[in-house]
Amino acid sequence: MDSIKENDYVLLYLDEKRKYLVKAEKGNKFHTHKGFILIDEIIGKRYGSSVKSSSGWDFLLLKPTIRDFIIKLARKTQIIYPKDAGYIALISGITSGSKVVEIGTGSGALTCVLASLVRPEGHVYSYEMREEFFNLAKLNIEKLGLSNYVTLKLKNAKEGIDEENVDSIVIDIADPWEVLENAYRSLRDSGIIVVFSPTVNQIEKTVRALREKNFVDIHVTEIIEREYQAEPEKLRPKTSMIAHTGYITWARKSVE
Amino acid sequence: MDSIKENDYVLLYLDEKRKYLVKAEKGNKFHTHKGFILIDEIIGKRYGSSVKSSSGWDFLLLKPTIRDFIIKLARKTQIIYPKDAGYIALISGITSGSKVVEIGTGSGALTCVLASLVRPEGHVYSYEMREEFFNLAKLNIEKLGLSNYVTLKLKNAKEGIDEENVDSIVIDIADPWEVLENAYRSLRDSGIIVVFSPTVNQIEKTVRALREKNFVDIHVTEIIEREYQAEPEKLRPKTSMIAHTGYITWARKSVE
Amino acid sequence: MDSIKENDYVLLYLDEKRKYLVKAEKGNKFHTHKGFILIDEIIGKRYGSSVKSSSGWDFLLLKPTIRDFIIKLARKTQIIYPKDAGYIALISGITSGSKVVEIGTGSGALTCVLASLVRPEGHVYSYEMREEFFNLAKLNIEKLGLSNYVTLKLKNAKEGIDEENVDSIVIDIADPWEVLENAYRSLRDSGIIVVFSPTVNQIEKTVRALREKNFVDIHVTEIIEREYQAEPEKLRPKTSMIAHTGYITWARKSVE
Amino acid sequence: MDSIKENDYVLLYLDEKRKYLVKAEKGNKFHTHKGFILIDEIIGKRYGSSVKSSSGWDFLLLKPTIRDFIIKLARKTQIIYPKDAGYIALISGITSGSKVVEIGTGSGALTCVLASLVRPEGHVYSYEMREEFFNLAKLNIEKLGLSNYVTLKLKNAKEGIDEENVDSIVIDIADPWEVLENAYRSLRDSGIIVVFSPTVNQIEKTVRALREKNFVDIHVTEIIEREYQAEPEKLRPKTSMIAHTGYITWARKSVE
Repeated sequence: MDSIKENDYVLLYLDEKRKYLVKAEKGNKFHTHKGFILIDEIIGKRYGSSVKSSSGWDFLLLKPTIRDFIIKLARKTQIIYPKDAGYIALISGITSGSKVVEIGTGSGALTCVLASLVRPEGHVYSYEMREEFFNLAKLNIEKLGLSNYVTLKLKNAKEGIDEENVDSIVIDIADPWEVLENAYRSLRDSGIIVVFSPTVNQIEKTVRALREKNFVDIHVTEIIEREYQAEPEKLRPKTSMIAHTGYITWARKSVE
Repeated sequence: MDSIKENDYVLLYLDEKRKYLVKAEKGNKFHTHKGFILIDEIIGKRYGSSVKSSSGWDFLLLKPTIRDFIIKLARKTQIIYPKDAGYIALISGITSGSKVVEIGTGSGALTCVLASLVRPEGHVYSYEMREEFFNLAKLNIEKLGLSNYVTLKLKNAKEGIDEENVDSIVIDIADPWEVLENAYRSLRDSGIIVVFSPTVNQIEKTVRALREKNFVDIHVTEIIEREYQAEPEKLRPKTSMIAHTGYITWARKSVE
Repeated sequence: MDSIKENDYVLLYLDEKRKYLVKAEKGNKFHTHKGFILIDEIIGKRYGSSVKSSSGWDFLLLKPTIRDFIIKLARKTQIIYPKDAGYIALISGITSGSKVVEIGTGSGALTCVLASLVRPEGHVYSYEMREEFFNLAKLNIEKLGLSNYVTLKLKNAKEGIDEENVDSIVIDIADPWEVLENAYRSLRDSGIIVVFSPTVNQIEKTVRALREKNFVDIHVTEIIEREYQAEPEKLRPKTSMIAHTGYITWARKSVE
Repeated sequence: MDSIKENDYVLLYLDEKRKYLVKAEKGNKFHTHKGFILIDEIIGKRYGSSVKSSSGWDFLLLKPTIRDFIIKLARKTQIIYPKDAGYIALISGITSGSKVVEIGTGSGALTCVLASLVRPEGHVYSYEMREEFFNLAKLNIEKLGLSNYVTLKLKNAKEGIDEENVDSIVIDIADPWEVLENAYRSLRDSGIIVVFSPTVNQIEKTVRALREKNFVDIHVTEIIEREYQAEPEKLRPKTSMIAHTGYITWARKSVE
């Protein structure tokens, strides 16, 4: 049995459209369109069980995963999607113990995914030049309890990357080609660089710059998620979908 | 500087189509269609540098990542693709320290991805009933140095899953609905179950069984990877692609 | 020069989101969120020129095509999409002079596409059992001036198809397998049958029935349209898209 | 009953992979990997019936449609795919009676689709500057019996388009932006222009040129076909697919 403890984050689930990420703070009330929920009533309950709202609706009490967090994080930018975050994680070779640089922290969603991969011994150094995002990301990373694995830097990576011998660098800024020279220097031999960008114009410039800067094994790819209605009698893709988030360009550092 | 040591695995890279995963064993020769490479010549060289084959071709010496391993692993079944492995990793919530059950080890590719996520404190228990695959997976997992994080079981999970209070269960067998009852019992409260299956007929039955067995928040989805030619002047998707590997169905355990 | 004549249909175009199909009836006013347009002012103007609304917005006066009509037709059902209509037209082999049966007229959008293909010598016989749709389709077909090429039948095709030696049959009803026997009898030797259906459960049953009923060269396919932002500096797919309309199953009649 | 006549084209069908387009010429033999077929034996047989090859295999005798012809046409270039041809036909507004210009005849496959749409009263004027393709297209168009509806021109459309007041122009050449000025002049008011091109670099330039040349309602889109295995018990998309043929850019002529 796995029970909800004070200050845990809980995913209150009514249905696919109504899921809420809530901190179990004593004395609080959480308001939904289907009535409120008294937090004191959920502390001590089993995960996977349910609670009744004041209007009589049953909300399931689920234990949030990293996916739930990145979908529900406070955001000021386009958030990274699970489909892209999972793929980037895999191709970047980032794993427990990796030393990673991220350029363009944004709201910190991808930062959290990377941090969850490198722990307990690895570390993520994340560059963000806009103070507003720097502060937001800080809060988000704390929310997930990942602050020990991340150093946030309020700094423009074009002016220098401080870390050396880095395993992987993940870039999500509008002009990635501007930081490739610094990224090359910062990477370990054969290290991996990943660039996420929404337009084909950006890919064009990024690939050109990667070639010039001595990166090899250059890939450009796109991950598309197509969800289905989970109805056994009427099985079909959902009518509409997110058609595009961004392209993933990645390559490795050659030392020739 | 990061140099190749004896018995390291190295990715010999000529071009997109010609990449070879080679163990740096002293005294060996590695034969390609473009001549052979003397392994003694590569030991001690920097990763990211290159070596000349006997016919004068330059092969880059890259450090393989988990992606390279799962693509190049010895296989007797359809291997898991990076696009699917990355997504499953993310939605399953598997992270450093997780306790995971896998049903249907196959060649062990996904097992390796899961093991690389749970280390150093977590563990993967993987069930395979066909001795041939059990043995192959064992070798593959050793190859990646992940044996400490995996317990392989030559056992039909339909006859019972030994582990309790498991964080996540990942299933890749032809009749996943047959193991859902055992999976439910083995999972911790609110734990996550992921099923990978190639046909819509399998989804139909799986979703039906998940509903009956008290799983909630059921999703059916599909991850599609579309690769582009990395040519800045002729940027376009590659002409052909893998159109389908399998559908990913996932859900959480409710205890109501 | 090609000028707008009284009672022509005109596509009033402000931008991608604001296009209106309007009949040029003397004395009328057409109201939009950007002011009204006096129809008398557009009669006699050149197609491709523009007119000012009462609030000073310039609306282009475009000549509608069959695509504009089927998108803008009055509808009570899911309308057929151009991507599907174009594909069905091509694989069905329907051309000028063809004799076609349609089962499930719905709002008549696909009927209009088929009618525009068979004219001037061919004919479309379209079956609809719900009076409400029968009447709506009638109006829509008249609107496009295609009534001469269509015979609408308020009849359940399960109870019989009156036409013989038909070139192609196009089916868009919920239970297509129920009409396959009649369709087989009605088709000419080697004639083509096309079935449009939204769920995989329907495909399963349709393919099974086609096999039993002596149809050959059975195909199941899906046409997906992915639109791009037409912005040269920020070229990328649109963020969201219609992910699914329906599957297209088609086959030919064998006489063995 | 619909019987095969001398000199008809027949689609000999063994299975999905083995389909042959054959002219029923008296006295001929058609050789396949499964034995030969005596043409004299098929003349007079019913369409939809079958014939035995010399090795005892049953080949179905199907009546080819425009789709079968364009797939099987002799080609020296990338042929147009049915998914693209059907969509272009629909959005171009081309119908019985239309006057159409095509720039870039290639092997003539799309020319045939357009000709089959405009007949009996309309006409297609198709420009091709390479003599080799001009000759090949001529043969292909004759094969389909569509010569009456097509005027082939061995001419570079950049040097002028002779036709005026054209309903639609369809362009499939490497540098479409070079002919847009002539195309604009040739089109009727509010006429439609369609450009087919494989790379994003081409779209970028085409959209820019369309904007400058006073075209409006500019669209960029892509049609993707995903085929399924037609097996009711193992229903799933085919493993591999054509991932990309080309992008379709289209717009209308404004006269402002």
